[in-house]
Amino acid sequence: MVPINEHYQKLSAGYLFPEIARRVRLFQEKNPQAGLIRLGIGDVVLPLVPAVVSAMTRAVEAMGTLEGFHGYGPERGYSFLIEAILAKDYAARGIILDPEEIFVSDGSKCDSGNIQEVFSTASRIAVADPVYPVYVDTNVMAGRSGGCGKDGRFEGITYLPATPQNHFSPEPPKQGVDVVYLCSPNNPTGAVLGREDLKKWVEWARKEGALLLFDAAYEAFISDPSIPHSIYEIEGAKEVALEFRSFSKTAGFTGLRCAFTVVPKALKGKNSKGEPVSFNELWNRRHSTKFNGVSYPVQRAAEACYSEEGRRQILENVRYYMENARIIREGLQGMGLEVFGGVHAPYLWAKTPGGMGSWQFFDQLLEQANVVGTPGSGFGPSGEGFFRLSAFGLRENIQEAVRRIQSQLKL
Amino acid sequence: MVPINEHYQKLSAGYLFPEIARRVRLFQEKNPQAGLIRLGIGDVVLPLVPAVVSAMTRAVEAMGTLEGFHGYGPERGYSFLIEAILAKDYAARGIILDPEEIFVSDGSKCDSGNIQEVFSTASRIAVADPVYPVYVDTNVMAGRSGGCGKDGRFEGITYLPATPQNHFSPEPPKQGVDVVYLCSPNNPTGAVLGREDLKKWVEWARKEGALLLFDAAYEAFISDPSIPHSIYEIEGAKEVALEFRSFSKTAGFTGLRCAFTVVPKALKGKNSKGEPVSFNELWNRRHSTKFNGVSYPVQRAAEACYSEEGRRQILENVRYYMENARIIREGLQGMGLEVFGGVHAPYLWAKTPGGMGSWQFFDQLLEQANVVGTPGSGFGPSGEGFFRLSAFGLRENIQEAVRRIQSQLKL
Repeated sequence: MVPINEHYQKLSAGYLFPEIARRVRLFQEKNPQAGLIRLGIGDVVLPLVPAVVSAMTRAVEAMGTLEGFHGYGPERGYSFLIEAILAKDYAARGIILDPEEIFVSDGSKCDSGNIQEVFSTASRIAVADPVYPVYVDTNVMAGRSGGCGKDGRFEGITYLPATPQNHFSPEPPKQGVDVVYLCSPNNPTGAVLGREDLKKWVEWARKEGALLLFDAAYEAFISDPSIPHSIYEIEGAKEVALEFRSFSKTAGFTGLRCAFTVVPKALKGKNSKGEPVSFNELWNRRHSTKFNGVSYPVQRAAEACYSEEGRRQILENVRYYMENARIIREGLQGMGLEVFGGVHAPYLWAKTPGGMGSWQFFDQLLEQANVVGTPGSGFGPSGEGFFRLSAFGLRENIQEAVRRIQSQLKL
Repeated sequence: MVPINEHYQKLSAGYLFPEIARRVRLFQEKNPQAGLIRLGIGDVVLPLVPAVVSAMTRAVEAMGTLEGFHGYGPERGYSFLIEAILAKDYAARGIILDPEEIFVSDGSKCDSGNIQEVFSTASRIAVADPVYPVYVDTNVMAGRSGGCGKDGRFEGITYLPATPQNHFSPEPPKQGVDVVYLCSPNNPTGAVLGREDLKKWVEWARKEGALLLFDAAYEAFISDPSIPHSIYEIEGAKEVALEFRSFSKTAGFTGLRCAFTVVPKALKGKNSKGEPVSFNELWNRRHSTKFNGVSYPVQRAAEACYSEEGRRQILENVRYYMENARIIREGLQGMGLEVFGGVHAPYLWAKTPGGMGSWQFFDQLLEQANVVGTPGSGFGPSGEGFFRLSAFGLRENIQEAVRRIQSQLKL
């Protein structure tokens, strides 16, 4: 028989969200009448905005004509989309990027999962704890860790605890680390890194020769204009950081699939002879060998997010979700719970009452209030004792969820 | 600086198709007036069929409504599509598969490139030569080879020459091999494996404990009803083979992006303790950790390929391309060239005249006839002395290309 990649066997059985889905399915089988409200997985619920629907419909119709048909597109993405990204997401903030520094893809989950392929398996990884599980799991699968300890941490990976004590903004690591995953606004804690935090990271990376993988999938939810949306708003970042962006939460594209990654040409790694190697070229090799471009109508839909009308419409949805976040935050605080996030991010990160375990609270929330949250411990050991609620829901469901939590949860 | 994955540096500078694109761009800059006919990359040109356009348009419109909106879908694909695949592609041929054995994805390039992740880096790979470059390159990038020799072959990979002498159907390897990539109908040679060929491979794999990766992306082009479309038409294949399928060429989805992979639950690898491990579970872990499902409207479009109307319309396009293949084949044969393929596949594989080198003939074809082909050597050393022409073109262009090759090529 074929020898398998044994690193996969280091992972625990379930990726967090499938495990939640399993528990919810079990609950529903036993309680078919219960009207569940899902604030777990963080999936958008508002329909695509009219500007996006209309651009995508036009593109689909064009694909049914000889003149408008599009076959294989450029693996990096169509220039109509790349130019819109460069102008509206970057030049508008004083950041000048080259079109060849943008790689359009079908999702930030894919990009942040695949990026580790271009690093040596000997490269040393650091993540925040709690953390978006994909960063860790994909490195474990590639063999950059030992086994998982009893504390829920993989040997060989550096964990940077993000806790209320450090305002969910850990210090750069002391020991040798090559690559750090930074997510801001943060999933799951909802915390955001300000300009001074980001400066600290860029300075550290420049000093250490380290690389920052900056996941900005939630940048649209930042409500304070002084907070950077891109790591490249920090001087010197192009030499030490790449950036992930997504249309998933910004524009409700979780079911359409479009994202992009910025890999500056100034970004270099080294081979074992110590020679510098361009990460842009490495990523381009990966992207063009294992990926075949994003669906043409989806790229037209993404482009529509940058029109004046499209922009206005998607920002209305962002505001809608952030009002939801306010309702949840104030509702939970009204019960005396300690709540973080929800100001620059669509996630609320709350302490479980009375030091209850995360999964225990998940089950209680499900059974008593029929609300699906996400157990904090699913994001790493420092998430134990916390839970995450997503503000992605219809207003009436959010209000009802808060009412149920307030009235039916037996604390 | 971060240590990079040095295996990437074993690859030559250009993936085949980007290199072709570069030469074509150069030619066009020098000859802006030349009316190029592109029979190189093998991209479809006929518009999406009406049944597909209409299903996809409805899905996009639904995404603009609260009731019809779809966020994250199941990573493995929606059951409406999986059920259609099971019924029409498999049950109709007497093959019973479980819905959990189907993994819908955004392309066979991605699947056939990513599948190697679940094998040990020590697993031994065999490919035909010539070969679709993705099979080789992705294994090189993962470290399953040494460097590239002067003969264009990577050390540590077993090459099985496919030549006119063996009717482009190589024998199974003698020495130790764990995994074999089989592509039928074949890209690039256009050859097809018949039932007896496939039986031979399945028997060999069962005897050796090897795994077959069966790429059936071109099955729709098979014109002889006695030739299997799926490896699972061969008894015992579920224990030794997985299968790649794609809507790209079958239904003109190269710009939409949809494919699927069949990973039977009976398929096992082993860990270093010799314990059997399910490839279905390993691939599910990979798929759900690094991928987030295919665009919902695209899955609705793919579903429409299985309706009676959709099926009829896409088969009309397949016939159109196969008539093109006939025109090219007979045109080249009329010039005295030796031509293979083009009967069960949209590719023609011809010997270059007078033993000319593949790239030299590519340049001559481009400069004298203004036709873009693909140099056979781009697919591996045994492709030297051959070139590939694709039958994906509009009829008038195909006819004009043949006329130009016949009249303008100075042989």
